[in-house]
Amino acid sequence: MKVFNFSPGPACLPESVLLEAQKDLLDYKGCGMSVMEMSHRSPEFEAIIKKAEADLRTLMDIPDDYSVLFLQGGASLQFSMAPMNLMNKHKRAFYVLTGAFAKNAIAEAKKVGEVVVVASSEDRTFSYIPELDRSMFEGDADYVHITQNNTIYGTRFTELPDTAGKPLVADLSSMILSEVINVRDYGLIYAGAQKNIGPSGVTVVIIRNDLLERSPADLSKMLSYKVQAENGSMYNTPPTFAIYIAGLVFEDLLKKGGVGAIQKVNEQKAAILYDYLDSSSLFRGTAEKKYRSIMNVTFVTGNDELDKKFIAEAKKQGIVNIKGHRSVGGMRASIYNAMPIEGVKRLVEVMKDFEKNA
Amino acid sequence: MKVFNFSPGPACLPESVLLEAQKDLLDYKGCGMSVMEMSHRSPEFEAIIKKAEADLRTLMDIPDDYSVLFLQGGASLQFSMAPMNLMNKHKRAFYVLTGAFAKNAIAEAKKVGEVVVVASSEDRTFSYIPELDRSMFEGDADYVHITQNNTIYGTRFTELPDTAGKPLVADLSSMILSEVINVRDYGLIYAGAQKNIGPSGVTVVIIRNDLLERSPADLSKMLSYKVQAENGSMYNTPPTFAIYIAGLVFEDLLKKGGVGAIQKVNEQKAAILYDYLDSSSLFRGTAEKKYRSIMNVTFVTGNDELDKKFIAEAKKQGIVNIKGHRSVGGMRASIYNAMPIEGVKRLVEVMKDFEKNA
Repeated sequence: MKVFNFSPGPACLPESVLLEAQKDLLDYKGCGMSVMEMSHRSPEFEAIIKKAEADLRTLMDIPDDYSVLFLQGGASLQFSMAPMNLMNKHKRAFYVLTGAFAKNAIAEAKKVGEVVVVASSEDRTFSYIPELDRSMFEGDADYVHITQNNTIYGTRFTELPDTAGKPLVADLSSMILSEVINVRDYGLIYAGAQKNIGPSGVTVVIIRNDLLERSPADLSKMLSYKVQAENGSMYNTPPTFAIYIAGLVFEDLLKKGGVGAIQKVNEQKAAILYDYLDSSSLFRGTAEKKYRSIMNVTFVTGNDELDKKFIAEAKKQGIVNIKGHRSVGGMRASIYNAMPIEGVKRLVEVMKDFEKNA
Repeated sequence: MKVFNFSPGPACLPESVLLEAQKDLLDYKGCGMSVMEMSHRSPEFEAIIKKAEADLRTLMDIPDDYSVLFLQGGASLQFSMAPMNLMNKHKRAFYVLTGAFAKNAIAEAKKVGEVVVVASSEDRTFSYIPELDRSMFEGDADYVHITQNNTIYGTRFTELPDTAGKPLVADLSSMILSEVINVRDYGLIYAGAQKNIGPSGVTVVIIRNDLLERSPADLSKMLSYKVQAENGSMYNTPPTFAIYIAGLVFEDLLKKGGVGAIQKVNEQKAAILYDYLDSSSLFRGTAEKKYRSIMNVTFVTGNDELDKKFIAEAKKQGIVNIKGHRSVGGMRASIYNAMPIEGVKRLVEVMKDFEKNA
């Protein structure tokens, strides 16, 4: 049975991308070998990685003075790499605590320098984004860090903070390419691929070139943005197949009209789900309305047993991986770019049926 | 045209593995989704990673008191992780310099502590492995590091050094699973996957459990062997698809009779090539006979123009990626496990023809 996969990541990919990868799996465009078998220094792979970067630049309108890197280790390694590379003048950075991944980012940054948590939404289980204003960011610091979309709690920053001139570092893992952003608003963007980009094992980093000069010379070469940028993400062998799939996803998104077009679809998908949640007398959303994510929709019945029953019933109907994160329980529907609107409609039907029979 | 791909890595994979991956690419064993789309916490992926580990343990006869990790970042990140985790009592380690990757490993270790290069073969372009004896390793040090097979120079350690009781740390990237080794001889083994294991983007680490206690508590969690071991390589999202392909390669190797069986084939393959090189009046091997690698066979004509001509001619005959590394020139045939004996025979035919017509 073809299922609708609401996994928070790794997550569903466009079917056309998988079909193309399948077709070329043993013989990429007649070159006699699989992409997995190709030297990363071959002209074929050079073309793949260059096109992936060019398409991502088009999709996100990335200015020329930003580097695009395809790295390994996921956002979790970026929690360390960002401070290791950037936190070196004031040895101090401002962090906004809006969820479990923000907490992990803070814990790793503390191993490198001083972390000032300027605001937190932990008091109400991260169900909102704290109000921020410029005065909070006035003191000395090397950068300001936010987790722009919080996968576990279903919240997102609907506007960016005024960082008082400090570079904004943002974890965009669960929202990159889902809505239009202005890259110039950021100093550093990072995102694990396994939500909106491709398979796990590749991490996209977008960094303003002047920040590359902050990378300490005695930092591990693999952990240095500067070294990675100077080598076009090929200081060592990159995750070639994951980059290839990411490239196919970028190409597919361009064909679909780009980020602006998919954002409209994403807003529609989210509205279908939130509208139902707001009208339901059984289910309710857990994130505050103002900060609702359009990628991760979290909801509960308010009764753990009923939640379990619903998750089991949904699975029978081909709606899989909607269990909430183990730390919060309830349900979560991750509706990334590759989730078709039909999947969301189907989920709402199943919820309505469940509500009727509950 | 189906080609024989002698790339040093990423390199050829068994055709049966690629066929199986192709078949299941959109729907893994009827679960309705691709392995790339699966949550790493799903029962399906849990089964994949557990089987991959179990099969690798069988193949290499890995004792129970060793952990097996599937990490990201390649051997190059291990150049940093090994000292970051292990070099913390004496803050000193012994390294043997046998090639470009050993040099990189030394450079990274120097950022962490004191490195004593006990022996080097740089004087003769790394064409041999220096003689080592126990007395060289008598002083205080946290470990001894070797690069057991040198991909660029075509040499390998044919016996392991007596490290005077210190843990042996070995980069096995270009030889893992190619010949029988005794894991008990090592404290830590690491290997990038893209030669004998699978696609690039996953790195196998095998570590004796007592060494996990050396990982400093203030080390980045992603870089800590201890954290990675405690979390079964799932502290964060692992490179799921690369691990899946690695698992298929392990399964395939078990079917072929395991490492002992493939070693015999590898020795045969290497002998065909070296025997011809030793009899040729045009081509000659560059590594000293005693230390010849059975994975990477390096050779030259002695004339750069003729080398180029041969590489171009071989390509026309479907023999691809035999150009030597840019730092040494000449030719290199990487004949990893997945290179069929027919490929080596074909290469020798092409060499013979070229010699006849030269």
